[in-house]
Amino acid sequence: MKIAFIGLGRMGRPMVENLLKAGHSLAVHNRSRSVVEAFVQQGAKAAGSPGEAVQQADIVMSCLLNPEQVREVYFGSNGIVDSIAPGQLVIDFATVEPALSRELGDAIVKKGGRFLDAPVSGGPTGAAAATLTVMVGGEAEDFTVAKPIFECVGTNIFHMGPIGAGTSTKVCNQILTGVNHVLVCEAMVLGTKAGIDPSALFEVLRRSSGRSNALERAVPNFILSRNFNSPAFVVEGIIKDLECAIRTAKALGVRLMLASVAQQMFIETAALGHAQDDVSSVILPMEEIAGVTVMNRSGKGPKEDSAR
Amino acid sequence: MKIAFIGLGRMGRPMVENLLKAGHSLAVHNRSRSVVEAFVQQGAKAAGSPGEAVQQADIVMSCLLNPEQVREVYFGSNGIVDSIAPGQLVIDFATVEPALSRELGDAIVKKGGRFLDAPVSGGPTGAAAATLTVMVGGEAEDFTVAKPIFECVGTNIFHMGPIGAGTSTKVCNQILTGVNHVLVCEAMVLGTKAGIDPSALFEVLRRSSGRSNALERAVPNFILSRNFNSPAFVVEGIIKDLECAIRTAKALGVRLMLASVAQQMFIETAALGHAQDDVSSVILPMEEIAGVTVMNRSGKGPKEDSAR
Amino acid sequence: MKIAFIGLGRMGRPMVENLLKAGHSLAVHNRSRSVVEAFVQQGAKAAGSPGEAVQQADIVMSCLLNPEQVREVYFGSNGIVDSIAPGQLVIDFATVEPALSRELGDAIVKKGGRFLDAPVSGGPTGAAAATLTVMVGGEAEDFTVAKPIFECVGTNIFHMGPIGAGTSTKVCNQILTGVNHVLVCEAMVLGTKAGIDPSALFEVLRRSSGRSNALERAVPNFILSRNFNSPAFVVEGIIKDLECAIRTAKALGVRLMLASVAQQMFIETAALGHAQDDVSSVILPMEEIAGVTVMNRSGKGPKEDSAR
Amino acid sequence: MKIAFIGLGRMGRPMVENLLKAGHSLAVHNRSRSVVEAFVQQGAKAAGSPGEAVQQADIVMSCLLNPEQVREVYFGSNGIVDSIAPGQLVIDFATVEPALSRELGDAIVKKGGRFLDAPVSGGPTGAAAATLTVMVGGEAEDFTVAKPIFECVGTNIFHMGPIGAGTSTKVCNQILTGVNHVLVCEAMVLGTKAGIDPSALFEVLRRSSGRSNALERAVPNFILSRNFNSPAFVVEGIIKDLECAIRTAKALGVRLMLASVAQQMFIETAALGHAQDDVSSVILPMEEIAGVTVMNRSGKGPKEDSAR
Repeated sequence: MKIAFIGLGRMGRPMVENLLKAGHSLAVHNRSRSVVEAFVQQGAKAAGSPGEAVQQADIVMSCLLNPEQVREVYFGSNGIVDSIAPGQLVIDFATVEPALSRELGDAIVKKGGRFLDAPVSGGPTGAAAATLTVMVGGEAEDFTVAKPIFECVGTNIFHMGPIGAGTSTKVCNQILTGVNHVLVCEAMVLGTKAGIDPSALFEVLRRSSGRSNALERAVPNFILSRNFNSPAFVVEGIIKDLECAIRTAKALGVRLMLASVAQQMFIETAALGHAQDDVSSVILPMEEIAGVTVMNRSGKGPKEDSAR
Repeated sequence: MKIAFIGLGRMGRPMVENLLKAGHSLAVHNRSRSVVEAFVQQGAKAAGSPGEAVQQADIVMSCLLNPEQVREVYFGSNGIVDSIAPGQLVIDFATVEPALSRELGDAIVKKGGRFLDAPVSGGPTGAAAATLTVMVGGEAEDFTVAKPIFECVGTNIFHMGPIGAGTSTKVCNQILTGVNHVLVCEAMVLGTKAGIDPSALFEVLRRSSGRSNALERAVPNFILSRNFNSPAFVVEGIIKDLECAIRTAKALGVRLMLASVAQQMFIETAALGHAQDDVSSVILPMEEIAGVTVMNRSGKGPKEDSAR
Repeated sequence: MKIAFIGLGRMGRPMVENLLKAGHSLAVHNRSRSVVEAFVQQGAKAAGSPGEAVQQADIVMSCLLNPEQVREVYFGSNGIVDSIAPGQLVIDFATVEPALSRELGDAIVKKGGRFLDAPVSGGPTGAAAATLTVMVGGEAEDFTVAKPIFECVGTNIFHMGPIGAGTSTKVCNQILTGVNHVLVCEAMVLGTKAGIDPSALFEVLRRSSGRSNALERAVPNFILSRNFNSPAFVVEGIIKDLECAIRTAKALGVRLMLASVAQQMFIETAALGHAQDDVSSVILPMEEIAGVTVMNRSGKGPKEDSAR
Repeated sequence: MKIAFIGLGRMGRPMVENLLKAGHSLAVHNRSRSVVEAFVQQGAKAAGSPGEAVQQADIVMSCLLNPEQVREVYFGSNGIVDSIAPGQLVIDFATVEPALSRELGDAIVKKGGRFLDAPVSGGPTGAAAATLTVMVGGEAEDFTVAKPIFECVGTNIFHMGPIGAGTSTKVCNQILTGVNHVLVCEAMVLGTKAGIDPSALFEVLRRSSGRSNALERAVPNFILSRNFNSPAFVVEGIIKDLECAIRTAKALGVRLMLASVAQQMFIETAALGHAQDDVSSVILPMEEIAGVTVMNRSGKGPKEDSAR
């Protein structure tokens, strides 16, 4: 299969590597050229513009960071929409508002193309391991065509409904992920300020009813180890995703109280200099207010005594 | 071991059953007598007051619903504090403010007694299965004495620190549990309003980064099945627990933004008639605003296609 | 002075009337033609497009409802930017993001034109009475030119700084106005539910430290009289203005907690069917939750006894 | 009239001075004796305990800081309730939960006494000028008796309903006052960060629809002049008052979203060291996040040009 892949960032790069491994022929484009060269060494063709990439492909994939980049790559000159030919299938992996997915789909379908929105969950680690969850919106027949390619990058592939259903699903996941990180930090700061050893607190909470993936991810990997500068997902990214969620909800007449409050706390965190740090750095302003640091004190967990 | 057990509610009853099964000798007291009779049939002794129960025991356990009940049972006439003898060990399972745990501990220690605060996580189901998580505050030697008894009711027994450390830990868990239920409801309502099948949405979210125990618990067991009237944990209960959290945080100088907002949404839910329904009924006002119902439409999950 | 005026809505119409009264020569344009005819009868010229209006004028004024309309009128075909000639002065009265004001200003200045952003406060009543407050951003010399015209529509004319400073100021006022309406409703519902007569409560609050313009406006004119369907400012409008505020704050790294929460409560109100009702209808969902109605019971105020 | 006055703090002292000026005979009690001596010099009698003060009086007045002090003075040994004789009238000026007012009233009425809750608005300045607003709950005949005395300390005297109606009214005012201070700070920080001169911004806002007493009070007197350490009303006080409001609302089934969020921001401010500073210091954490200072830059207001 001849694939055009546009956007070689932290998610795009490992996805392209897995597609190359699977034997697909790739034409790649990226705003900054240096990344492209590395893939040319691995057999990919370099494309000078999104449009040039499109012309060499059966399937076009874009993996971009934000709606501005998406608009530029799709609607700019030498962009995807300009160059698309009837019958070509375009897949967008970006987490954007469903309304934008539908706008992209409309423009491509109007020119005879096909479109799937297919945001993913799992982060750079999941992309590298090809274990991403892929949430797909679009026509069933287009999903069937694309499924074998999705299986090169992920393990849970879901068809959620028409165009926009993929990004709608992703937006729901981002609400859960984003707010949960703020929540985990509120609880860890309170417990630590109350005198509980943070590592011990984590060991209990992960076995109790309040457990979550955000707790398991953020506390040991980032918070206790004070590892905020090696981000898996940055504050700026979740601010953008919560913006998608809040705007989508507003348009639909859905009240999003927690997501709105949590977004403000990420904005607080970004304003204090952590826009490019991991989302778990939302704990830093809370720690400053409380006057505590939620860090590993001993390398040892709590004294646990399990009954069996 | 001779145990006095005070408070035979939805948590206390299965705990007493497990203690009886383990061969302990129990004197039980409850405000409403009818429950006591059932245990007398199983070999427990009935006590007419908390104080009377205390006089028959080596270890005194209380399992009460709220701070008002705790104050009455400990500080009322014929209460625990009045009757406690030097050397007796008192264990309180209630989820109350750590400040109240310390107040109880102070009063008991002043009379020569010993005290542990030992709130549990796992609900009536965990209590019945003897798989509770027990979070204990108090002296290490008292913890050692009590551990074999805790092992009759739970599987994860943690010593968290001095008196108050058990309830401090529990309060952190309740923040996570309570807010997470509100959060799950926000995401499910948004996705459903956006046109995604709720059951399919759940199947994706539980495999994505936003997953949590609250999601796994609330969505299939209560929300999709519209089963709010068979509560595992009631709205009134989480309002009280978040009150504990917010008051504790205020006293410590910790900002709890999400917990405060979530508490208001549970208050909204209670005001609309759901105080005694399951905490997941916090979705009901959101559904009314959005004009959707997050229910199982088909009995079938999403079309999943896992790659491996 | 030859003026082109584009946008004859609830604010634009009384402003045009005052400009005509002051003897200015006007070319007017509006999407719906019927309004235009009325002004033609009063001596204004009809313009078939924004561009056509521009060509007949020394000064161009636009008074539009939302950013979508602004973009269409400025950047659409036959729009203002297309038609502007060097030296012409354009004044935009809309409440939009300062970033959009700067975008308009840049486009017009690039073509040799001049630009002022000049949002107003005072509503249709203030527009009719020519008592608007006008908050102006742009060059001092352009402000000097425009001042006599602003004085035809308002009494407090402020030059706030460069292009964007007018809308920045307005956005701050809209935060205050919008959130204050929610706040007044929270207080009135609580007091009424606590058993206080709402009219009596209002009489006290307007003489106490919590008094505000929103209280004086919303309680007697809309809430006590249940007059939500004769809006002075609609829910949809404040949702849009708070969106401007939140987006502006996000871009600047400013946390806006109350504005974010209040916006969600207006979204709740709009979703329940009140998008076109007065902003004070934000009380309606609160009343339903509390189970009270904050209405005039007697026509009489509280028993007041002033000492002097 | 023989008056017992208990509590000679920042509000009580000027009230006592005005009562002495009006020719009343006073027995005064205060926890710290030094303040008492000053009034003895002015002709008041010193009382060694609340109970001793009660025995010398026709009317008993208490003016205390928080519910803990109120409980101690009313229910402690040698307290008011212990010493009250049939027919004596007790007036409490404290801002407490209406539920506590009713608890005081019940205890006093049970002993044959009479009770009015009569919180005031106006602060130490209003107390000194005898221009307080007094919000009174209790029997109409008791209000009639007390009215001439209230007129010694205030100008707006309102009878709001039965016992508890005074504090219910005050609690509504405190929501408005407290939240409005946070709101004013959000708007001023946003405008300043957007580049508007803070003094100019204030001049516009006070003439626009978002104006409020909090704006008029906080901005010139505290914020622009950076005068947070000479408080008129301290952060700790508003945290307590919002606590009253939130607890009252919870008991009544009223959702208080803004008050809850605002309370957390005052808690943030207190935690950062400003518990004893003026409530307007809630701007300090916001300024730190935004990286701006909302201060008077020039001593000059904006360039205003009023049309008439």
